[in-house]
Amino acid sequence: MEINESHIEGRNAVIEAFRSGKTVDRLFILDGCQDGPIQTIKREARKQDTVIKYVAKERLDQMSETGKHQGVIAVCAAYDYSELDDIFKLAEEKGEAPFVFILDNIEDPHNLGAIIRTANLAGAHGVIIPKDRAVGLTSTVARTSAGALNYTPVVKVTNLSKTIEELKKTRNMWFVCADMDGTTMYDLDLTGPMGLVIGNEGSGVGTLVKKNCDFIASIPMKGDIDSLNASVAAGVLAYEIVRQRIKKG
Amino acid sequence: MEINESHIEGRNAVIEAFRSGKTVDRLFILDGCQDGPIQTIKREARKQDTVIKYVAKERLDQMSETGKHQGVIAVCAAYDYSELDDIFKLAEEKGEAPFVFILDNIEDPHNLGAIIRTANLAGAHGVIIPKDRAVGLTSTVARTSAGALNYTPVVKVTNLSKTIEELKKTRNMWFVCADMDGTTMYDLDLTGPMGLVIGNEGSGVGTLVKKNCDFIASIPMKGDIDSLNASVAAGVLAYEIVRQRIKKG
Repeated sequence: MEINESHIEGRNAVIEAFRSGKTVDRLFILDGCQDGPIQTIKREARKQDTVIKYVAKERLDQMSETGKHQGVIAVCAAYDYSELDDIFKLAEEKGEAPFVFILDNIEDPHNLGAIIRTANLAGAHGVIIPKDRAVGLTSTVARTSAGALNYTPVVKVTNLSKTIEELKKTRNMWFVCADMDGTTMYDLDLTGPMGLVIGNEGSGVGTLVKKNCDFIASIPMKGDIDSLNASVAAGVLAYEIVRQRIKKG
Repeated sequence: MEINESHIEGRNAVIEAFRSGKTVDRLFILDGCQDGPIQTIKREARKQDTVIKYVAKERLDQMSETGKHQGVIAVCAAYDYSELDDIFKLAEEKGEAPFVFILDNIEDPHNLGAIIRTANLAGAHGVIIPKDRAVGLTSTVARTSAGALNYTPVVKVTNLSKTIEELKKTRNMWFVCADMDGTTMYDLDLTGPMGLVIGNEGSGVGTLVKKNCDFIASIPMKGDIDSLNASVAAGVLAYEIVRQRIKKG
């Protein structure tokens, strides 16, 4: 149960985790619980901007490994998150135009790990994921990334659309997302400072995020079914960017 | 326990499965068991060329869902396998040069499913997997393939190297495998009748299979870690073939 390695249960343990600076991805609190220690935990969570979910006792019991959750379970990142600046520092150090993966709500930890692995090998300088809903850096993600988490910065942001807007202004970046109604990827110029947006496994790229993208790229689909696996699609698009950069360079 | 959906346990059930023409991927028999019904099962297995594994009682007990295996468990394909000719018939019907995936011992059912999904969307006409060792068409594979198993023929062969040799002679096919010491994939001409060989998750493409390949393609690796996930690598290479075919066509 690797994911449980990063569960912290019980009031004191959770308060301690916050105070030691550990990154808590998500906090589960027993619905209706209002006493002092829980208030302290909620305060710490707000400082860190942690997502809080209020859940029924059955849910906590089910998540609990120790059976002693005392009404609170914190799900922690197995790895630490980086800051946006770390990504651009890395690009500068390498003397390359920034190349960033933006993951719009990837839910499967195996996909997230495989995509971080791809980001590393395609020479991307970092990966941006949203704070809410999407899966965080659990130990399953770390394992599936095959070591890439040690090298490729992963940044968690509150609002992907706002981050995209900000990076357009401050870093002159362009953003491309994949969708079936887009331009064939071979016909786009993807050689500039580029953010590659990968959508959710089921629902694809969100409407607002898509609106903020400069290009919509389509991967040629010659088959009978709908779409590629998210991590495969990320790989195919990332390597089209690699190909164009090599060709131009 | 989806994989167990395709376990058949007990002597009569297993004999019945063979006689009804069900494809048994692997047969587990209690080591030392020699009685009449077991001999019948072994005879049927040999007719189908099924891999037989002799195992200890503990192993069978562990695999068993019903607790009534009677010394024999058959692991069946959730989907039926096709014949080599089906692949080339499909290519002919579409009026395209054959494009086939050859999977040299993919072990993870999620990878196998994702690769079959990619094969379908990249317009490949079929997937060839080896009879022994590699994972078969379990229900996990079917689910991960996102429906592609209904369209893309999957063929199981006894010896991949021999099949490659045969297809070179009888179908004028070329074979390309991925390895780090190869030629950058962009510099190869991959537009002919093509077999794309994908290696095992850990050990890559086998020595003998590699020797039989006409091209060794390398995917540019710009990162710090060793290799892409097998299904991502398959996607990246397959779409380089797609790109070259579109460009030429």
